[in-house]
Amino acid sequence: MVKGKRIGVDLGGTTAKIGVVNENNEIVERIILPMDHKPPFEEAIKAIAEAILQLGDIASVGFGVPSTLIPGSDIIIHANNLGWKNADIRGELKKYLKDIPVYIANDADCAAVGEMMHGAAMGVGNTLMLTLGTGVGGSFIYQNKLFLGGNGFGFEPGHISIERNGISCTCGNRGCLECYASATALARAAVECKESALLARLIDENHGKANAKMVFGAAAAGDHAANRILDDYINALAVGVANLITLFGPDLVVIGGGVSGAGERLFAPLRELAYGMVDGIDVMGRPPIVPAQLGNDAGIIGAAMLDYALN
Amino acid sequence: MVKGKRIGVDLGGTTAKIGVVNENNEIVERIILPMDHKPPFEEAIKAIAEAILQLGDIASVGFGVPSTLIPGSDIIIHANNLGWKNADIRGELKKYLKDIPVYIANDADCAAVGEMMHGAAMGVGNTLMLTLGTGVGGSFIYQNKLFLGGNGFGFEPGHISIERNGISCTCGNRGCLECYASATALARAAVECKESALLARLIDENHGKANAKMVFGAAAAGDHAANRILDDYINALAVGVANLITLFGPDLVVIGGGVSGAGERLFAPLRELAYGMVDGIDVMGRPPIVPAQLGNDAGIIGAAMLDYALN
Repeated sequence: MVKGKRIGVDLGGTTAKIGVVNENNEIVERIILPMDHKPPFEEAIKAIAEAILQLGDIASVGFGVPSTLIPGSDIIIHANNLGWKNADIRGELKKYLKDIPVYIANDADCAAVGEMMHGAAMGVGNTLMLTLGTGVGGSFIYQNKLFLGGNGFGFEPGHISIERNGISCTCGNRGCLECYASATALARAAVECKESALLARLIDENHGKANAKMVFGAAAAGDHAANRILDDYINALAVGVANLITLFGPDLVVIGGGVSGAGERLFAPLRELAYGMVDGIDVMGRPPIVPAQLGNDAGIIGAAMLDYALN
Repeated sequence: MVKGKRIGVDLGGTTAKIGVVNENNEIVERIILPMDHKPPFEEAIKAIAEAILQLGDIASVGFGVPSTLIPGSDIIIHANNLGWKNADIRGELKKYLKDIPVYIANDADCAAVGEMMHGAAMGVGNTLMLTLGTGVGGSFIYQNKLFLGGNGFGFEPGHISIERNGISCTCGNRGCLECYASATALARAAVECKESALLARLIDENHGKANAKMVFGAAAAGDHAANRILDDYINALAVGVANLITLFGPDLVVIGGGVSGAGERLFAPLRELAYGMVDGIDVMGRPPIVPAQLGNDAGIIGAAMLDYALN
């Protein structure tokens, strides 16, 4: 039994969400600090640390950050949305939190830990999680611990190539999974589509901006072009999921991000296609492929539980 | 210090190679039993076990088998080249070996363990090994142990798709790495090539059979078509290696199989291409990409060391 409050912090580009997580892995108290004014690193960490300390009786603090971290030192390499580079978050937090144990991880990894502790992957030892958003993020929980790879830099499924001569990715590689399977990729396909009056109208009504929801909506209304776009999107996602099942042998696959709310129009073909692409799937058994459950709370809950999931 | 002889067995389609491995991880005694007459399972295991027992003073026996194994029970699912299916190798061996500890793994995994213990990956904690042969086999040594995936069925890099609408693979999937990066794929490209008189002559002189060596030979002689074939081959291999570096963060990449003897015509462009495809490679550091060192002995040495590499 832990004594004191376990704190999880989900640090994003617009807010820092601080939560107190109880012994049932539920959030029982919240503080939200704005970050959209892009405060300098030291100022932001001071504000977060002071807010945490005001909660009193702190047992531990877990931090999810939107960046890759240097293994060992936990230095933020580049938090794009915050404009922070090479920032020593552990050192800066320690100035205020002193001897309180601090755990730090990538935000996608925190979300996966949250799903493992209290969501779709509760009680499952080996879970693959993919989050479909601006990019494709992901985590692998291996034997109840975060798999961070041999070098400790973490698991980067968005940047495996599924079309070696495909689209040029922002990372410099070609055909990366996130070029085809992110929510952004689905919205881009809608914008580029010239054959759907319905999609064109929906985009127009939304001031020229497309999103994944429009494509699912148009497809549900029977629009042929929208259904073709979705079929291709789901095929790409299935290739990514199948490659990862082939390599990692998860017990469960959890899909997060806004797109994961699309229901069986996404999940039914995704399962059928992905299982069909894995050699020996019937000997190994088909890992269920399910939506994430915790939504935005996963990051806070997972951050508070990091001590459990980090080696 | 282990007391008694550590035995490694490399069971293949044409021979069972039995070796006594000393404390320096060298093979000091060998027995080779023919398997090309395709003996029934029980008969073959009896012959191997009796040969082992004649060596006397046995500490442990490790077995590398050309099949996926059922996790836990070590049942051979399908040893294609031997014609064995659902064979209880552990149970059958125990009839003869009684209380001698027995360790069993896939043959590719044994080769990787051999390279880790006494070859190219000696002293390295996290090694990715790919073996380029009829297919593309592979193993990942993670924190000094064989990574067998969440479900324990092992690591199957040959069947990740690198061209989602690519060539149909024997496994049912499309665009699998081994369709492009196996030694077989390189030989097939030579046969299909219509623009090289030199390649056509080499294949003709070899009774219509192409192999990887011919392509490297013709390329070295300045043949343009052979160089184009090689460039495409190395590109595909680089995509596979880059995808695996992105996901597994190895400290070292070891390439085995006959093709790995091709020297810098293979390795120089492979390194340049693969590193260029990995997002954040300069932050993580470039894992060396090197040829395997032990050749055919890797399987025996690794089998004898399995107790060290299995959890």
